[in-house]
Amino acid sequence: MYRVASIGGDGIGPEILVEGKKVLDAAGEKYGFEIEWTDYPIGADRYLETGELVTEDELKELSAYRAIYFGSIGDDRVRPGVLEKGILLALRFYFDQYVNLRPIKLLHGVSTPLAGKGPEDIDFVVVRENTEDFYVGIGGRFKGRHHADLQVARDLYSVKFGLDAESDAEEIAYQIGVLSREGSRRVMEYAFDLAERREKRVTSVDKANVLSDVYGLWREVFTGVAAAHPTVSTEFNFVDAVTMWFVKNPEWFDVVVTPNMFGDIITDLGAMIQGGLGLAPGGNINPEGTSMFEPIHGSAPKYKGLGVANPIATIWAGSLLLDHLGEHEAADAVVRAIEGTIRDGVVTKDLGGTARTADVGEHVAALIRS
Amino acid sequence: MYRVASIGGDGIGPEILVEGKKVLDAAGEKYGFEIEWTDYPIGADRYLETGELVTEDELKELSAYRAIYFGSIGDDRVRPGVLEKGILLALRFYFDQYVNLRPIKLLHGVSTPLAGKGPEDIDFVVVRENTEDFYVGIGGRFKGRHHADLQVARDLYSVKFGLDAESDAEEIAYQIGVLSREGSRRVMEYAFDLAERREKRVTSVDKANVLSDVYGLWREVFTGVAAAHPTVSTEFNFVDAVTMWFVKNPEWFDVVVTPNMFGDIITDLGAMIQGGLGLAPGGNINPEGTSMFEPIHGSAPKYKGLGVANPIATIWAGSLLLDHLGEHEAADAVVRAIEGTIRDGVVTKDLGGTARTADVGEHVAALIRS
Ligand SMILES: CC(C)[C@H](C(=O)O)[C@@H](O)C(=O)O
Ligand SMILES: CC(C)[C@H](C(=O)O)[C@@H](O)C(=O)O
Repeated sequence: MYRVASIGGDGIGPEILVEGKKVLDAAGEKYGFEIEWTDYPIGADRYLETGELVTEDELKELSAYRAIYFGSIGDDRVRPGVLEKGILLALRFYFDQYVNLRPIKLLHGVSTPLAGKGPEDIDFVVVRENTEDFYVGIGGRFKGRHHADLQVARDLYSVKFGLDAESDAEEIAYQIGVLSREGSRRVMEYAFDLAERREKRVTSVDKANVLSDVYGLWREVFTGVAAAHPTVSTEFNFVDAVTMWFVKNPEWFDVVVTPNMFGDIITDLGAMIQGGLGLAPGGNINPEGTSMFEPIHGSAPKYKGLGVANPIATIWAGSLLLDHLGEHEAADAVVRAIEGTIRDGVVTKDLGGTARTADVGEHVAALIRS
Repeated sequence: MYRVASIGGDGIGPEILVEGKKVLDAAGEKYGFEIEWTDYPIGADRYLETGELVTEDELKELSAYRAIYFGSIGDDRVRPGVLEKGILLALRFYFDQYVNLRPIKLLHGVSTPLAGKGPEDIDFVVVRENTEDFYVGIGGRFKGRHHADLQVARDLYSVKFGLDAESDAEEIAYQIGVLSREGSRRVMEYAFDLAERREKRVTSVDKANVLSDVYGLWREVFTGVAAAHPTVSTEFNFVDAVTMWFVKNPEWFDVVVTPNMFGDIITDLGAMIQGGLGLAPGGNINPEGTSMFEPIHGSAPKYKGLGVANPIATIWAGSLLLDHLGEHEAADAVVRAIEGTIRDGVVTKDLGGTARTADVGEHVAALIRS
């Protein structure tokens, strides 16, 4: 028996998460375990009603779980950033989920936009640092007449900078990224451990030739961790170059370890080469604490409730969740059933099919049971 | 008569620049102008000999030119960042070349790694801000036992943080990005002006949902500039999503305006979809001052002196240079001659041919003359 928290979130989040749970329940039946789901009503609707994003009580309750199954957040009625930072990033940071694990794998039967590449070429894992870098949320603006977002800041500025000035032409904004040696080390250790169980190659991503302070530290730490894993071969790649090689030679990669922001960028690119966002799962992992599994796509508000969203990314994230709980056999079965479902042509419109969200979930579940 | 400064730089830089000059001279013969070239010995060799990157005198002299023709810099004997920051970025910043103009255009006869896409699909321009953002070079490290890069900092730290500590496990690095309202506005104005002469669409790239301070300002300014150009249609794209659409739907784009660092990343991706780095030119433009034109690739030290480097990116950058000088007809002729050269199969190994660097330059020059 496992207790797992679930957060449907916004837009298509709830409906795809229903399919994910359906599949994980089927896997439980087949492999002899049960999941007790507890749902949390976190998301835009509640935020708009009560102003609450994630409450202190919820954080305390959620910390009793080893896993959270997460749909997606984001809503057109809310300014960009509020839900992302107030919910998704808040959970990643609060639970210190320092590994964002994102497999980039082209499944059989899925087409990639890359000419001449197949499933044997596109099969690697991005290990994205998930708690530091430019995601720490430190920054500010000054010399502006107004700052549309923050009334508080406005009050502050009006004292500091004389906001009765005629113009805000001189306004300046800054943003700070922070990397720690320990924060870099632990995610790299995770990446090297993973590589030792795969093809023993790790690529480090940075831009140390320009952002030399943060990524200079990153490189130093990487060099140290690499020395402690002599059977793993390594290379440094600048982030700009990585985007090229993902497209030109994805077969070169095995494990890619990257700071947070570059990880965000290159995993969306990765999602596209593996067939699209509808297929890309992610795990936010704290090996000692509460981890969280989610599709990497957003909430696609305009498809909400239409039953057309592709639930595969979420179902695959469920497989990562099972893996995390130690149910490796069941986790593998879920991925095989996803491949079977694609082979059977039971796919949504984004993959060229006519199946509905629930059809896909049911087909995957049925294949697992059979 | 134009006076143009040239900087060959490192690795393959000098040899590809020779071809570029050859082509521009041919264009001059044909279209009735002459270029007087003055070469500056800036690069790794001199740096290693004398410690000089760019001298004050050189900066003063260079400011008398409207255009610099630049090869590439970077050398294995020098730590990453020293030449990039001390030469390339120093010139971009000193001359306030706030527009980094990077056409992403698939030429006829070149193959793209994207399945089913052709020259009609891949034809847009990235306007990258080139003087702000995370490229300002502000940052630092602290709580470290040592900082391999900076003896000065080491001395500082040993006072501040007691560097006789047993461990540097607590070391932290930070990096600051800065955006100004005016710096954002002027590059956006350039992008909208360009779009008005093209298909009247501008895409703004940011990550305002996470890096809300700098890119929140960027969005506000973009909204204002867009309002002043009502015939241009606009959209916001998050940087992660942009990398997907470059690969999936490059035909959606016309003009893309982006902060510096994201511009660096997405233009390398752009270079790949237009057939590779050997084909991607860039202009660093200050409309009122000294501009600089270069291939966007690096110095590829291992190919230095072998005569195998593809000079097309540099030659194309030369076309941007001519355009900048007002020689529009000649500029067009250079691009047409590049296409003719590709059609004639006179291409280097990276494009599947057997031609040598000089063969390509001579062929392009001959086509212009004929
Ligand atoms: C929604 C957003 C805050 C998030 C991120 O930037 O991490 C998303 O893009 C992702 O990759 O999970
Ligand atoms: C060499 C490097 C400093 C440079 C940059 O990051 O701008 C390069 O990648 C480019 O795109 O011109």
